[in-house]
Amino acid sequence: MKTIPQNWAELEPAEKTTLEKLFWLGYAARHKLIETTQFSKSKLNSVVAALIDQGFLEDRGLPFQTGGRKAESLCFKQDLGVVVGVYMGATGFDVAILTPNLEILALQTQVAAIRLGPGVLMPQVKAMIEATLQHLHLNPTAIIAIGVGIPGPIEFASGLLVDPPIMPGWEGFSIREYLNQAFARQVFVDNEVNVLALAQQWHEQKNQKNFLVVKIGTGIGCGIVCNDEIYRGSSGAAGDVGHICVDPNGPLCHCGNYGCVEAMAARPAIIQQALEATRAGKSPLLNRILEQKSELSSEDIVQASREGDAVATGIIQRSGLLVGQMLAMLVNFYNPSHIFIAGRFAHAGPLFLAAIRQSVYQRSLALSTRHLEIRIADLGRQGGVIGAAGLAMLETIRS
Amino acid sequence: MKTIPQNWAELEPAEKTTLEKLFWLGYAARHKLIETTQFSKSKLNSVVAALIDQGFLEDRGLPFQTGGRKAESLCFKQDLGVVVGVYMGATGFDVAILTPNLEILALQTQVAAIRLGPGVLMPQVKAMIEATLQHLHLNPTAIIAIGVGIPGPIEFASGLLVDPPIMPGWEGFSIREYLNQAFARQVFVDNEVNVLALAQQWHEQKNQKNFLVVKIGTGIGCGIVCNDEIYRGSSGAAGDVGHICVDPNGPLCHCGNYGCVEAMAARPAIIQQALEATRAGKSPLLNRILEQKSELSSEDIVQASREGDAVATGIIQRSGLLVGQMLAMLVNFYNPSHIFIAGRFAHAGPLFLAAIRQSVYQRSLALSTRHLEIRIADLGRQGGVIGAAGLAMLETIRS
Repeated sequence: MKTIPQNWAELEPAEKTTLEKLFWLGYAARHKLIETTQFSKSKLNSVVAALIDQGFLEDRGLPFQTGGRKAESLCFKQDLGVVVGVYMGATGFDVAILTPNLEILALQTQVAAIRLGPGVLMPQVKAMIEATLQHLHLNPTAIIAIGVGIPGPIEFASGLLVDPPIMPGWEGFSIREYLNQAFARQVFVDNEVNVLALAQQWHEQKNQKNFLVVKIGTGIGCGIVCNDEIYRGSSGAAGDVGHICVDPNGPLCHCGNYGCVEAMAARPAIIQQALEATRAGKSPLLNRILEQKSELSSEDIVQASREGDAVATGIIQRSGLLVGQMLAMLVNFYNPSHIFIAGRFAHAGPLFLAAIRQSVYQRSLALSTRHLEIRIADLGRQGGVIGAAGLAMLETIRS
Repeated sequence: MKTIPQNWAELEPAEKTTLEKLFWLGYAARHKLIETTQFSKSKLNSVVAALIDQGFLEDRGLPFQTGGRKAESLCFKQDLGVVVGVYMGATGFDVAILTPNLEILALQTQVAAIRLGPGVLMPQVKAMIEATLQHLHLNPTAIIAIGVGIPGPIEFASGLLVDPPIMPGWEGFSIREYLNQAFARQVFVDNEVNVLALAQQWHEQKNQKNFLVVKIGTGIGCGIVCNDEIYRGSSGAAGDVGHICVDPNGPLCHCGNYGCVEAMAARPAIIQQALEATRAGKSPLLNRILEQKSELSSEDIVQASREGDAVATGIIQRSGLLVGQMLAMLVNFYNPSHIFIAGRFAHAGPLFLAAIRQSVYQRSLALSTRHLEIRIADLGRQGGVIGAAGLAMLETIRS
């Protein structure tokens, strides 16, 4: 691979605008870029020519042939380099190497508890990036930028973690600085739900202006897209919906309050409920799994429900209803056009989604739900690394 | 008053930008406009010269004299015309005539129940605008534009009311068309809380990017400012927070659900609670007022609390705690920098505000409340007409 042009920061405003529009569109014909940039045809042509000349873009002539016209489809030049996307969850992390057009070249997953702290986790992340690059016969100099999604609140500007409840030991640690020193490339770090929201926004080619991405996992969080941009709030804490109260008489949460939706409907609560029911002899099926594995996972509960286990089905339904109660509040306040459900539990099947919808439609006002769509986030498991890499590309273009 | 220039729509983009910045700043020196428009000094000077020439601006040379330099303070030209601000509540409406710099020239108030419908209300509004103009010796041709705030959900683009719960009989009625036909001027209609949010934004000279204005009256609603703009949601329903559930075991609301904050903490609920306590013989003070007037108002309850009545104080405190519970959810989700409390009940005194704060700080996450300020909206009762007139000016400049 040839030397990478590192002159992103020196691009003209019109060039940056064109690259950003192309980023959102993916492969795009010139007429589409004229439409979205609102440049004149001659201005766009000259900007595109300059970008091709500098090695940022190429014209693949693919994949659409319309009418008798010469097909043309612009995209980021393949040998521009690669983007690294890292998505860290509570129980493991994903590392992917992607093209500048966000096609995944390689994806690796590792089980590792985030509470082991940065001293244990970060060398593993670094080693996995190196190994994945090597596997693709790439040198670290091929990296354009690195994007990281993490399951904790972060001050976006400084890249520092702030008081991360499920990430003890990470307070004040700079993931950005660590990876920047390791690879000598720009690093962008954001909360996992913002990264998932960006992935959804990219998947939709920025066609939806105001929507939410809700992740249900070890915690519950919400990525917010407002007027086409990720909304982070006045101190970067927006979307921290896991501690919204859905039942004042509910159980005590680790935050000190009662009845938080996270304490009642996220993965640990679901597993706890399943364990209690199983130990009380209410589910022979879950009992069999528990005896085999001496533990239960959320996947086991989903599987048991699919096989007709009433206890598992009840637990999933209850979780969906509670999540829906919380979402009904957000719908009344925010009036989004879409809510996308993400996280492994999103794939619990139609039962979970139906329970969420039932709650939302019952508790929200008619005007807010008239055009509301609630569905599973489109990119599934890959949304994390695609969003993280997307963040890196977008911020590089804007820098 | 001389003929009004009606060429707002023909202004150049740079002229519109300058007028909008001036609108937010109020009186402004040139260096301040250079700072906010980011125009060069020579560009700004030529734009300002053109605007003065066309009769939009004037230089008052007021009110600040800094150093040895000639004082200069630009503002909209006084004889440009007037703006009409109409603020309609559930139980009455305000009409004001303002200068283009949003100084109130005259303000009139009338008691009238909104549920009497447009056939009764709108001729009253029209007559009051005419009378107020006459009182100022102004002709309707002096009107630049008319802004209206209403207590119901509205589709901002069409100006039509959509399914307004406390405005039966208004469904599908066009306030815009009615006033446009009456005065032959552009009319802009928005929900009351958006109008209050715009007033607050104007008062702050647009210094706060992300904040909420919560109005507690017959209903409870929330105006949202997101990235410096009023946020209306994907179908204009954003901020309809009155039906957020604060107690699943709470009383039945007219919306069909249980425990809505509006059904438990807004004015009708407060009055109902006071009546019940009074009839049960728990408050001699309120009983005396009830015997005199044969009804109780929220003002009576506030007054009783000021005079040491424990029942009144308890009711106000409970309402504040419930509103705070709802706001805690919004704070976790939206992470605003400020929450401004509006509506007559906002002036219930420090007790009400203290109860709201107590709930919010107890139930919200630390990162979200670290820099959060909760206080009474600055413009008080006048916020309604100032916001409505501000909407009319802003949309005229942008049109």
